[in-house]
Amino acid sequence: MILQYEGTKYQGWQKQTTTKDTIQGKLEMILLKFSGRDIEVQGSGRTDAGVHAYGQVANFKMETTASTKELMEYINKYLPDDIAVIKLSEVSIRFHSRLNAKGKVYRYRVLNTDIKHVFERKYVYQVSEKLNVKAMQEASACLLGKHDFQSFTSAKKGKKSTVRNVERIDIIKNGDEVVFEFQGDGFLYHMVRIMVGTLLEVGKGNLDKERITEILFAKNRQEAGMLVPAKGLSLIEVFYD
Amino acid sequence: MILQYEGTKYQGWQKQTTTKDTIQGKLEMILLKFSGRDIEVQGSGRTDAGVHAYGQVANFKMETTASTKELMEYINKYLPDDIAVIKLSEVSIRFHSRLNAKGKVYRYRVLNTDIKHVFERKYVYQVSEKLNVKAMQEASACLLGKHDFQSFTSAKKGKKSTVRNVERIDIIKNGDEVVFEFQGDGFLYHMVRIMVGTLLEVGKGNLDKERITEILFAKNRQEAGMLVPAKGLSLIEVFYD
Repeated sequence: MILQYEGTKYQGWQKQTTTKDTIQGKLEMILLKFSGRDIEVQGSGRTDAGVHAYGQVANFKMETTASTKELMEYINKYLPDDIAVIKLSEVSIRFHSRLNAKGKVYRYRVLNTDIKHVFERKYVYQVSEKLNVKAMQEASACLLGKHDFQSFTSAKKGKKSTVRNVERIDIIKNGDEVVFEFQGDGFLYHMVRIMVGTLLEVGKGNLDKERITEILFAKNRQEAGMLVPAKGLSLIEVFYD
Repeated sequence: MILQYEGTKYQGWQKQTTTKDTIQGKLEMILLKFSGRDIEVQGSGRTDAGVHAYGQVANFKMETTASTKELMEYINKYLPDDIAVIKLSEVSIRFHSRLNAKGKVYRYRVLNTDIKHVFERKYVYQVSEKLNVKAMQEASACLLGKHDFQSFTSAKKGKKSTVRNVERIDIIKNGDEVVFEFQGDGFLYHMVRIMVGTLLEVGKGNLDKERITEILFAKNRQEAGMLVPAKGLSLIEVFYD
């Protein structure tokens, strides 16, 4: 299934023992009600507390005589109005939304004005200092390609590889808004938000764009910029073969 | 001042004795805190409970040594995050936001799909039956010009004139969305929402477009279509000389 959600009120995608306020938890409660069985819903990846999704992909295994249309209507009826299944289809039993994912697109929205905004307040991070978009675009080019992104993750150094391939970074100015879009084979914990936080330092003139490559090589989280707030981030699309 | 607000949580613009949940009430409480005096805030018109504004205009009279910038920052600091002053300037003592208004633009957003939507849910009215946009555009032409709109208001017939001049109606299809935009010298109580409700009946094929003129001539609320929900409506702009 393909899911949309406004992450504002949730503790992220992944179910937790102490809270019901997760997207996965909501879905599994509804599938339990529908089927009478515990059904595990597998997402393409976790989204953190407050992060939104326009195209999260998830799968589950269930035997039912209901059509996909009936099942989708049932799930949507019981989901709160800030979560929606926008597509549901039957796929191969071997499909796994996380393991089969070939790439993802994330978008981060910055509102570059000091005027108070109302309508987009839950979806944008507001920065009042004037940003140099061209400098950020040039700096972002240093992040493209296959690199060890250890400097750009909050996850501690472990056995798992921190090498990822960032295929595309677009930074687009649209009125008062600056939109960052990242496409890659996968992203580490907090990676998009730390990349944006670092590029914003370049945009504010606090960091030379040449420093980006040095930060990558340092493999040290302390060298990179701040973790920007979750509310500006949305998972846009997940790719499969 | 020019104001934006998401009307979802409010009982409309106008202050009431029983509730503090009005836009005017919030503003007057802040100006009382600022000045130590009761200051009346005059809006260009009432917006109903649940109606949003991108460009409501309001004025008040106050003596202060503060600059407009300082005052605007003060008001925005104390306003909740779903109301914002986006412009504040000193004007002639004779300016009156309601009496001097020469025209207004309202927008009504319809989402024409049966797919559950998340991100625009507070700003659109969802209609799943396929709408004939061309038929609605043709029907809307009958509403243009100076007419007695008694059939298109929830206000009981009284001494006040129910004649208004509707200068422009645009109905634009944008993907799954159908946007209605109305410009006129003024609008009666519920007038935009009843016009939209009536045009939607044309769009659904329940009402011939020729009936619109008959409904106008009837001067009877019972003849027109339903009052569509407030959440789809926004006050966009108010014009002055």
